[in-house]
Amino acid sequence: MNEFSFIEYLRKRVPHSFKVAVGIGDDAAVLKKLGSGNLVVSTDMLVEDVDFVLNKLGPEKIGRKALAVNLSDLAAMGAEPVAFVLTIGKPKHVSTRWLERFYDGLLKLAKQYKVDCIGGDFSGAKEFSVSVTILGKARRVVSRSGAKAGDWIGVTGSLGGSILKHHYDFTPRIREGLFLAGNCFANAIIDISDGLVQDLSHLLEASRAGAVLELDKIPVSADALRMERRDRSKHAKQTCPSRQALEQALSDGEDFELLFTAPPRKKILLEKSWRRKFPKVSLAWIGRIEGKKPLIRWVLKGKVIPAPKLSKQGFTHF
Amino acid sequence: MNEFSFIEYLRKRVPHSFKVAVGIGDDAAVLKKLGSGNLVVSTDMLVEDVDFVLNKLGPEKIGRKALAVNLSDLAAMGAEPVAFVLTIGKPKHVSTRWLERFYDGLLKLAKQYKVDCIGGDFSGAKEFSVSVTILGKARRVVSRSGAKAGDWIGVTGSLGGSILKHHYDFTPRIREGLFLAGNCFANAIIDISDGLVQDLSHLLEASRAGAVLELDKIPVSADALRMERRDRSKHAKQTCPSRQALEQALSDGEDFELLFTAPPRKKILLEKSWRRKFPKVSLAWIGRIEGKKPLIRWVLKGKVIPAPKLSKQGFTHF
Repeated sequence: MNEFSFIEYLRKRVPHSFKVAVGIGDDAAVLKKLGSGNLVVSTDMLVEDVDFVLNKLGPEKIGRKALAVNLSDLAAMGAEPVAFVLTIGKPKHVSTRWLERFYDGLLKLAKQYKVDCIGGDFSGAKEFSVSVTILGKARRVVSRSGAKAGDWIGVTGSLGGSILKHHYDFTPRIREGLFLAGNCFANAIIDISDGLVQDLSHLLEASRAGAVLELDKIPVSADALRMERRDRSKHAKQTCPSRQALEQALSDGEDFELLFTAPPRKKILLEKSWRRKFPKVSLAWIGRIEGKKPLIRWVLKGKVIPAPKLSKQGFTHF
Repeated sequence: MNEFSFIEYLRKRVPHSFKVAVGIGDDAAVLKKLGSGNLVVSTDMLVEDVDFVLNKLGPEKIGRKALAVNLSDLAAMGAEPVAFVLTIGKPKHVSTRWLERFYDGLLKLAKQYKVDCIGGDFSGAKEFSVSVTILGKARRVVSRSGAKAGDWIGVTGSLGGSILKHHYDFTPRIREGLFLAGNCFANAIIDISDGLVQDLSHLLEASRAGAVLELDKIPVSADALRMERRDRSKHAKQTCPSRQALEQALSDGEDFELLFTAPPRKKILLEKSWRRKFPKVSLAWIGRIEGKKPLIRWVLKGKVIPAPKLSKQGFTHF
């Protein structure tokens, strides 16, 4: 199968909803008018050997993740996904069969989130890469820059240890993002892709605000605890109890949970509505917004402590 | 400069128009409502050693081209560009200074076309690549699938030899595309990126139509003629006159001119308006749409001839 016959194959297998006027196979795709809301756009790139190892896991997982990380970005704006395009750098060592399976994973998630694949571009390359650009809409957008002094800091789900498998099978928090934005429950939202501490810092810098963070309130994931137990049994001689799991919850990337700040007067109603609407997704309050300098003050069981030294400080690409 | 400080540098230097509610630096960008038109989306990827050699030309040219090819796709839909996002795979051998100059070329063209850079993503990579996704709007969209029997086939500018330099400095035909679409002058438009014959074939397949093409009407570019002269003087012994220039006009990729079909009743008015509106851009009629099978019938000086054998059949990435 060459490039054009593969595009023809995609054109036939990709379903189109009423939103799409022109889909795969033209110079550009066309979406019918989106209504009166704002248009929200996000783009994310995954590269072989940086974000995944090509033949370690099934191509379906990589396809799923390429879309999922973009959905997570829309969730962090309180936007509803509409459609996406993607570019793929395809090296010779990637077969069209592999690519078909990549699309299996991608399109399965697309169907679940009712988001249309409307176009793309292929290029030859030495390494496999995929860039998805997703379009969404939102009546009320919540950026990362709206946190206000006094806001509660909340986080969905639990954190750390995503490397075990969660970074491939996480559920993008679209519904939760729409809920937080639509009901004015959040002043600022960010998704945790670089690690809790680093992403909280991004939020604080954008909002020109500081925070107090309660270490004992951080929701540590079962995977982080599992990794800690595994590593402890390896280093049986270690006497001091490991704080590895907590550290992972603070600094591991790719949790793709939502970190947000909520105005205090909304907290009770938010909690009540949350439990009704998302009974299976935990919600933790891990601190408050305070001051104007983007610094974190650390508290453990009510007492101020020095900032924990984290071996990882999140991820930077260059 | 690391990834985050480079993003901060970009956030400061990239201007934002009234269209942008949230720009570079958040989880996603937000555009204010686009009005009642259609939303047009296109994406194109350039990769080191496939589309360009990294240190042969200035990075400004590569940055310019990354955006220009996407503008050309919008032109081929009759759409007006609004904004774009991009992902960049950045290898270690690309310095941030190189990247700044890449952005110089990119943002200069963006300014000329009044299109906003609203966001992007960086990743580490082994080779440099850039994927731009552009958003535009159009009241009336013209796809490649609307050609009708009897339509005249027109082409803007001249073709062939783009490899000399035109593929870096071409002018995306946005104004021409808007003119052709807005006045219902065109039933179908495609931009010539894969070569005239290949792109005409794409248009015919999409339109389920055939064409008669007049070889002597093909507008051969000065660059194609220059390359022919140069190659002839190299192979002085060659006796038969070379048809190289014409062949290049038929099959060279990356001309980025518009190929379109016009209903016969509109031809006279189109020509008259064109000369007034685009005095510096030539317009050539190179054939007609006929029949329902996507085949090309070749004519030279009024006589049917066998299809010319082209050494290149356009470009495919796999």
